[in-house]
Parts: sequence; C-alpha cells; structure tokens
Amino acid sequence: MPENGTWNVYLSGEIHSDWRERIADGIREAGLNVGLLAPVTDHGASDDVGVDILGPEESGFWKDHKGAGVNAVRTQTLLRKADVVVVRFGDKYRQWNAAFEAGYAAALGKPLVTLHDAELTHALKEVDRAAMATAETPEQVVEILRSATAR
Amino acid sequence: MPENGTWNVYLSGEIHSDWRERIADGIREAGLNVGLLAPVTDHGASDDVGVDILGPEESGFWKDHKGAGVNAVRTQTLLRKADVVVVRFGDKYRQWNAAFEAGYAAALGKPLVTLHDAELTHALKEVDRAAMATAETPEQVVEILRSATAR
Amino acid sequence: MPENGTWNVYLSGEIHSDWRERIADGIREAGLNVGLLAPVTDHGASDDVGVDILGPEESGFWKDHKGAGVNAVRTQTLLRKADVVVVRFGDKYRQWNAAFEAGYAAALGKPLVTLHDAELTHALKEVDRAAMATAETPEQVVEILRSATAR
Amino acid sequence: MPENGTWNVYLSGEIHSDWRERIADGIREAGLNVGLLAPVTDHGASDDVGVDILGPEESGFWKDHKGAGVNAVRTQTLLRKADVVVVRFGDKYRQWNAAFEAGYAAALGKPLVTLHDAELTHALKEVDRAAMATAETPEQVVEILRSATAR
Amino acid sequence: MPENGTWNVYLSGEIHSDWRERIADGIREAGLNVGLLAPVTDHGASDDVGVDILGPEESGFWKDHKGAGVNAVRTQTLLRKADVVVVRFGDKYRQWNAAFEAGYAAALGKPLVTLHDAELTHALKEVDRAAMATAETPEQVVEILRSATAR
Amino acid sequence: MPENGTWNVYLSGEIHSDWRERIADGIREAGLNVGLLAPVTDHGASDDVGVDILGPEESGFWKDHKGAGVNAVRTQTLLRKADVVVVRFGDKYRQWNAAFEAGYAAALGKPLVTLHDAELTHALKEVDRAAMATAETPEQVVEILRSATAR
Amino acid sequence: MPENGTWNVYLSGEIHSDWRERIADGIREAGLNVGLLAPVTDHGASDDVGVDILGPEESGFWKDHKGAGVNAVRTQTLLRKADVVVVRFGDKYRQWNAAFEAGYAAALGKPLVTLHDAELTHALKEVDRAAMATAETPEQVVEILRSATAR
Amino acid sequence: MPENGTWNVYLSGEIHSDWRERIADGIREAGLNVGLLAPVTDHGASDDVGVDILGPEESGFWKDHKGAGVNAVRTQTLLRKADVVVVRFGDKYRQWNAAFEAGYAAALGKPLVTLHDAELTHALKEVDRAAMATAETPEQVVEILRSATAR
Repeated sequence: MPENGTWNVYLSGEIHSDWRERIADGIREAGLNVGLLAPVTDHGASDDVGVDILGPEESGFWKDHKGAGVNAVRTQTLLRKADVVVVRFGDKYRQWNAAFEAGYAAALGKPLVTLHDAELTHALKEVDRAAMATAETPEQVVEILRSATAR
Repeated sequence: MPENGTWNVYLSGEIHSDWRERIADGIREAGLNVGLLAPVTDHGASDDVGVDILGPEESGFWKDHKGAGVNAVRTQTLLRKADVVVVRFGDKYRQWNAAFEAGYAAALGKPLVTLHDAELTHALKEVDRAAMATAETPEQVVEILRSATAR
Repeated sequence: MPENGTWNVYLSGEIHSDWRERIADGIREAGLNVGLLAPVTDHGASDDVGVDILGPEESGFWKDHKGAGVNAVRTQTLLRKADVVVVRFGDKYRQWNAAFEAGYAAALGKPLVTLHDAELTHALKEVDRAAMATAETPEQVVEILRSATAR
Repeated sequence: MPENGTWNVYLSGEIHSDWRERIADGIREAGLNVGLLAPVTDHGASDDVGVDILGPEESGFWKDHKGAGVNAVRTQTLLRKADVVVVRFGDKYRQWNAAFEAGYAAALGKPLVTLHDAELTHALKEVDRAAMATAETPEQVVEILRSATAR
Repeated sequence: MPENGTWNVYLSGEIHSDWRERIADGIREAGLNVGLLAPVTDHGASDDVGVDILGPEESGFWKDHKGAGVNAVRTQTLLRKADVVVVRFGDKYRQWNAAFEAGYAAALGKPLVTLHDAELTHALKEVDRAAMATAETPEQVVEILRSATAR
Repeated sequence: MPENGTWNVYLSGEIHSDWRERIADGIREAGLNVGLLAPVTDHGASDDVGVDILGPEESGFWKDHKGAGVNAVRTQTLLRKADVVVVRFGDKYRQWNAAFEAGYAAALGKPLVTLHDAELTHALKEVDRAAMATAETPEQVVEILRSATAR
Repeated sequence: MPENGTWNVYLSGEIHSDWRERIADGIREAGLNVGLLAPVTDHGASDDVGVDILGPEESGFWKDHKGAGVNAVRTQTLLRKADVVVVRFGDKYRQWNAAFEAGYAAALGKPLVTLHDAELTHALKEVDRAAMATAETPEQVVEILRSATAR
Repeated sequence: MPENGTWNVYLSGEIHSDWRERIADGIREAGLNVGLLAPVTDHGASDDVGVDILGPEESGFWKDHKGAGVNAVRTQTLLRKADVVVVRFGDKYRQWNAAFEAGYAAALGKPLVTLHDAELTHALKEVDRAAMATAETPEQVVEILRSATAR
C-alpha cells in the first residue's frame, strides 16, 4: 500500500574501490526506487578540477583550495538533496572529507549509514555512533535500502 | 480552482490491525490526491531486520538497537517527506515508538492527526493536545484528508 | 531564458467575495505557470467541518476548536507548500485568521502580498509592512505574479 | 528541585486597557521568575513614531509604513527573545497586528496563550486553536505562568 | 582548562518515583554545574491544572485537553531551554507523553539520555536508538552528566 | 552511475551584459541537466514595475520601495528554489543588490559562485570569501556546473 | 513595566567616518540598554590581518582571501549574536561587504536598519526594502533604538 | 567602543599534544574575553567512559558505541554552545571524529578554524575549504581570536 516515492541516496567517501558499482548493481537487480548521488569519483579529475577550470596556482594549498571549492558546489548540493547518506571508509588514505560529510549530514538530520571493515571500528566510533546502521559490505547497504524503501 | 498537488501522508503507529488498509480504501474510493507512506508493518520482519541484515547479536539490547536503527532509516525519512502525519494508538502494546514519532513530527511543524479509541483519551492527552484532530475511526481520518486536500 | 518552474501561490483570507476567481481567471488568461492553493472557501462547510466529521459538541468553543483544527491541517500544509502567500482582507468580519496566516508566512520567510481597499490601510499597517507589496485589486496581484514568474 | 531560570513572556496585543498592569501586579505578588516584554503601549507615540523620527509623509500609507517599520524593530526582536507569547484581543479595533504576531510566534514554535472575552470565541477560533490555552482574565494568565514556571 | 558553563538538563517522564531527587542529590554531591528542569510532578495538580485555572469541563476529553495545554506551556519551553534531555520510563502507566517529549527533543537535535529497567528494553527500542545513552539507575545518569560537564 | 537530477541555478547580479546568455548557451551545448533562474533583466521594466502595477508615487524613495518590493517577490522565491547561486559583478553601477543576494544565499547555506573581473578582487573580498569558487568568465561557470552536475 | 533586557546591536558597514561613535554617544546619553557590536574598524589592520597572522601571500587574491576569512570569524559571529543589525553605506567605496552582511542578516530574520544619504536611495533600493527603517543620520538610529528598547 | 561579550570557543580534535594549553595560555596572557570548551582529553577515560558507567560489553563495537554515545552528550552540546569552533589535526591517528565535528559545525553555520601542519594540507583540503582560516600554530589561533573579539 505505501507509495514511498523515489529516494535520493548520496554515496559519500572512498573513491578507490568498486563499492558504488556494487550498490548500483544491487539496487538495479532489486528494482528499488532509489536514485543514487555521488561525488566526482575520478581522483585525478577531482584533485585538478580547480586549477583546470580557474587557472594554475603555485602553492599546493591554494591549488587544493580551488579544487575543494569546485567539488563542494557538487557535494554540498548533493548532501542537501539526499534523503539518506551512506559513507564509505576504506583502509587507505585518511578520508577526512568522508568524515566531514558524515558530520554535515548528521547536523542536517539526514539518516546516516556507514560502510567499513571491522578493523576500522575503533577509529570510527564517533561516526558510527551518529549512524543508524554500520555495514561491512555493499550488499548489506542494498538490503538496508530495500527495507527502507519497500512498498 | 485550487490545485493543491499530491499530499504525502505518513501513517505511523499500530501494526496489528487493518486501519491502514481502511484508510487506503477510503482514499481510493474518494479519489483523493494522497500518497500514503508507512513503516514496515510486518512485525517479525521489523524486529529482526537488524540482525538479518547486519549479523546476529547475543544481547537482546543490541539486537533491538540494530533493528531500530535500520527501521529508523525508513521512518525518519518518511517523517521528513510527509506533509501530514497520522498516528494510530491501539489498546495493546505500549507503542512508545508511535508517541516518539508524534513528538518528532510536532517539532518539525508537521500537522498531526491522532487516531485511537475513547478509552485511551486520558493516557494520550499530551499527544492529542499537539494534534490538529483526534479521530476514533479510519473513516474519520479519510474525511479529514478529503477536507484538507479538496480542490 | 530563465525556466522558473511552477509557482505555488496560496490565496489566504476573505471567503465572501470573488477575488480568488478573478485571480484565477487572470492567471489563466496570462498563461502564467502558477498553481493556486486555497483554504476551504465554503463558509458553512468550513465552520461545521469539525463536528461534521468528529461528532457534535455542546459548547461553541469546542465546536469551533474542532473545526479550526481540521481546517488547520489544510492551511498549515498549504502555507508550507507555498512559494508566495497572498492575503486578502475585506471590510466585513475581523478575519483574524487571515492576519494569523500572514504572520505565520512571514516567520517562515515566504514573500507576502496583501490585498485590500485603501480604507483599511491604517488598521493593517503592521501586516502591510511585512508584505513585499500591497495591492487594491486582484488584477494587480495577477500583474505582480506575472512579473515574478516571467521567463 | 527544578531551577527553571527566568522566563521571558511577551505581552502582545490590545493597548487600550490595563491587562498588562494586572498581569505585572499578579506576577509581582506571586513572586514569579518572569520578565515581561511589551510593545510600545502609548497609542499616539506608536502611530507617529515613524514620521517623528524619520521625517513627515504626505500619504497616510507611507506614514503608517514608516511607523510600523520602527515598531517592528521592537516587536520582532521581542518575539524572538520571548519564551512564551500572550496575545490579548479586546472588543474594539480590529487588532490585526495582534493576530499577525500570534501567527509569527506560532511559526517560531513559541507556546502561545490567548486572552479575550467569550464573545470573541468564534472570530478567534483559528488563533485559539494554535494556542496552548485561552484565558478570559489576566489573573488566569498569571496562574498559567505560575504553573509553567513553578520550581 | 575548559569552562563549560552551566548546563540545563531537563528531566522528563515518570512522576511516581524519586528518580529526580536521586539525580538532584547526586549532582549536588558531585558539585556539577548543572541546572535541573522538570515538569510539574504533582500528579493531581498536573491533571487538574486546566480546569482549575480555566474553568470546569463536562467532557473528560476537553478537561484533559485543557490540562495538557497548560502543562505544554511549561514542557515545550523547558525542552527548548534544555541542553540535554533525560527521559525516564517506569513500569507503570503508558507514559506516552515521555516518549512524545523524547521525539520532540530528538527532532530539535538535543542529546537524549534514556533511563529505564532492563525489562523495558524491547518496548523502548526506537526511543533508546535515538538516545546517546541508556541508563538503568539515576546514579548512572549523574555519572554521564559528570563526564559531559567536567572541566 | 549517479543520477543527480535537475539542478536549479540562480543567476544573480549584473543586467547590462550578456553573461547570462553565454552561460545558457554553454549549458545547452554541454547538455547539462540545469534549469536557469534569473531576475527581471530588463532594467527599465524592473525599475518601474512597482508604480506601473501599483500606482504612481511622487517621492523617488517610495517609487523605488514599491519596485524593489515587487522584484523581491521574484528574487526571494528564486533564492529559495535555487540549488546553486551564481552572482555576477560588473564594473559599472554599485550593484548592492547583487551583494545583498549573495549574503542572503550564504545564510541559507546555498553554494555560491562569484563571477567578476580581476580588478574587482579587493573590493569583493568578503563576498568571494563566502563563495565556493570565483570565476572570471561565463565559460568557467559552465565548467563548474558541468563538474557539479556530471553523472 | 516591560523589562526588555540588554539588546545587542551590530553596526555594520562604512569604516571611514565617525557614525559609530555618534551612535555610541547617543546611546550613552540616552542611557539605553544596548550593547554595540562592530567589525574591526581600523582599515589597514583589517586588510592585512590575514597575512599578518597567517603568513604572506604573493597573489593579491589570496592575501584578500586570508584577510576576509579572519574578519569573517568576527563578523559572522556578531551577525548571529545581534538582535538588530544597522548597516551604514557611505558615498565612497563600493562596500559590497556591507550589502552582503545586510543580506545575511535578512535571511537570518534579524531586523535591519539602513543608514545612508538620500542620494544613495536608488542604488540601495533592494537593501532598503529589506530594512525596517532607513535613516539618514546616526541620531535617527539612536531614536529608533530608544523606541525599540524603551521600558 | 564595541562590547562584544564573552565568546565560547570549542577546541575540537587532537588530544595527544598540548595545543589546548598553549591556546589557553595565550588567551590568558592577552586577556581575551573567551571561554574555552573542550572534549574529555584524557584518552583512556574517554575510551572507557561508556563501559565504566553503563556496564561491560564483550564486543569491541558495542564498547566503543557506548563510549562514543556518552562522549557525544558532551561534544554535541559544546558544538551548539560554541560561537567559534577550532579543529586540530595531528599527524598521528586518523581523527575521523575531528573531521566529523568540523562537518557538524559547518552545517550549523559556526565559523570554523583549522589547525594543522603544512604536510596535512592535501589530505585536509575539503575541511580547510570549509574553514574561515587555517593556522599552523596555536599562537596563530590566539591571534585570530584576538582579532575576532577585540573591542
């Protein structure tokens, strides 16, 4: 009976593995009414986007600043459009931006799902505490979304 | 003349009677422009959803915690999507989650309608006070929605 | 060039004259991309809706309370759905509900347009001060909406 | 045991009777921890304040506009500072500003108490519906505040 | 080094046991910089406050409605003044108002602590899920507040 | 994989050059999923819209006041509908309204992009600081939007 | 009777004339319960504060960016602390930051007062439209604050 | 002239170095009107606080969950009380909680200052982009606060 509409789910975080594709595949197979949102996942493009568009910088700080600004136009808008935010942490890189987006989403009152291996549990305890669920596999995230959006 | 668009109405609370179906039937017969939203209403599925998806727990507390988290991804999103929230209280179970969702909806400024038998009046006085209307039958809720959405 | 989408305009206030129809006609003729929202404008139906649906009351106060609650499900939702709120004051009745809705809209940050005859100017000065424009005819309101929504 | 702090209570509405003084007297006698906020209650001063400070206007509309603007600096700030808003309606004048402030307070989520004679019940039904209590005498308002602030 | 100021802690829920006094005693002994807020805890006074102040009602529904309205002036203000909300559930009565206030606090983004016996775990799973901590004794709540406010 | 939906982009500021057309052309050529929003860009129409619709004024101040009010119905609504706000500053005129809209958008949490020549850098430093990116050409803005909305 | 507390008034805008001192003098003489807030008004200090504290920059853009960031820590906090915001525009410089702060304050719902000479009327029409009052002299601003805060 | 009141500054992040003491010393020496807020900085106490107060857990995940919940009562309240948030990142540990709190603060609109060594620039680019200033030493933070709070 319920007609729960289309859900916007923002997939934040790690860009060096295929977790987004696995969630997209799972959603397609399950026929869920979910629209996926994502940051720019081409690492090089993401890092250089500021200077590529707005001109070169000598200082690394300002090069990064420009790139992060252009990327924030996208990510801040997606965080606001999202009904649910999934944040993935991998074992490489510090991914402070993923934790930053988790905090931003939490303050906006968006339900949060975290996705990471068990060995990151202690390091991520504050972020996991703010989440409604902590998954270890993309397939678990698909099941959470199936439960959330089921008619 | 008015074109009031589609209204999202979230039906919160009791899952052991057919009140949602009766409202859905009434809305269909009346041809109202209303989309119904609802929590997972299969009790067993709802209770076990956390451990089914995310793995078993020995402690009852954490089993419940996991299940409530997964369910909250759905219910918090529906509370935000809803234009109007209807909360049903039955005479069995304590249904603290129904009262919790009523408080959440009230703080978000969503118009609230309560639905319960007359003998619960005293116990529900604070929740009813926050509601715009208190109905005793699903058919009355349909009439309220007909009045609210009429063109 | 601009594609400003459909605008929801809520027509609040006086229900004893044809001002809503005149605005609707003007919008149709001008081909504006505006969807009109309105309260229940059948006065008797509006007054009795509470007791008609939820059962009779002996006291006038509670009869009114019930009716106002059912109507508020509609009006509070329309105030939130609206992009712009137009409030009409006539020379009969005190229409405190119209002024209440103007205050509610102002606090939500919705642009407000008032519509009334010149002789009400002094009595309505606080409401007019909160408005972006004060019109004397429905045709002026149509022109304001034409300007607001023009592509 | 509770230490509920000082409460700011804004007394909005009618300026032609002594209701504010009666509430102030009652609060003093009861020793309540309440700070009273109020609009400018000298009618002439209030009406002329715009042109007195900012220079004369030929048109009544703009004279009122200026005055209402200066007064709004005060009243909008007091509405935001207030913990509770009491709105008084008398039988003279249309007092649309009182209803406007009630709507503004309601949208900000401030608890509202209305104060008026029984014969205004029908005309004020929408405003009363948004209030937590409707009193007929200032002494009842004092009792409500005593109950609200009691330690 | 930190100077964390005075914290307002609202103690919501059960009024038939001495849990508030035990928290107050613990806070005093520990010398915490905490100001406690509480609803009216005299049950009879709370139930009758509406008709005592505003006049009698024949119908139980409206008697309760009046009382709940007067009490809501207090509780809604305290919920907004609070930095932290503690909600106690006992094994008697349905205490829907406690769950309602928990939902209200959660939607306002106030950190929530629940306090109840282990046998209520399953019934309270949704409320506990929204809480930052679930305690079984008032002394545990004091320790949580000591940790939260420590300089 | 991402389906980022249609983005509403409000083009605020300068109305005496063809920058909006160049952005519109770029978006069309790039096939971006962007809907452009804009103020009334016919300068004379914009200035006179108040008196044209609502009647003449002798004083320039009130003529401007009326016009600015009618225009604000449009611009405030567009600022709220927008996902991203682009603000253009030219070298003529003081364009305080452009800076005002930038501040308004920033306070609403909308990502901001500024567009101006290098010689305005010092004068615009506070506005640029609040922006996610500062472009010098419309084509750079198109590239930022391409990056923001790419699937 | 009213005890309106201390008011925080933020004086934004022009830093090259003595208008803030004249307002401060007027407030002191009138004995108003007003606390004045202000940006850094030493122009050179304000411009260089970023590089002075955080190290030199070769590019003018980044030098300004750093300075504007440090100043924004102050001004954004003062805008949030303020009950009322007064914005002064002089005839020199473009003062886009003043208009930016006016827009920021308006979106936060803070009552706004503008202060400028008559010849700026047309250029400032959108900002003035969002203000509750437009003064030409600091003394008028003092009178507005006297009216707003009078007990 | 300005009387900018006491500022609450929350020092979030790294707990293994003396940066907070250096800021506290600097503030004391400079005589700034700043009250410092901080999380529990005793690492062991912070990690064990959940099980110490609320009872032991076998699973590391739930031990961490309990501890993070108790700590969140403190940190979420401090984030809301803060006027300005300073976030320190060290070169050890992943400090996802620091980035989470930065995101939370940004979404609440609190001015953010980051503090870290130059070699973390690239990894922290998104967090730094959301900040008003990025410092490398505690002494620079003191200077920023001196500038922000100067009378």
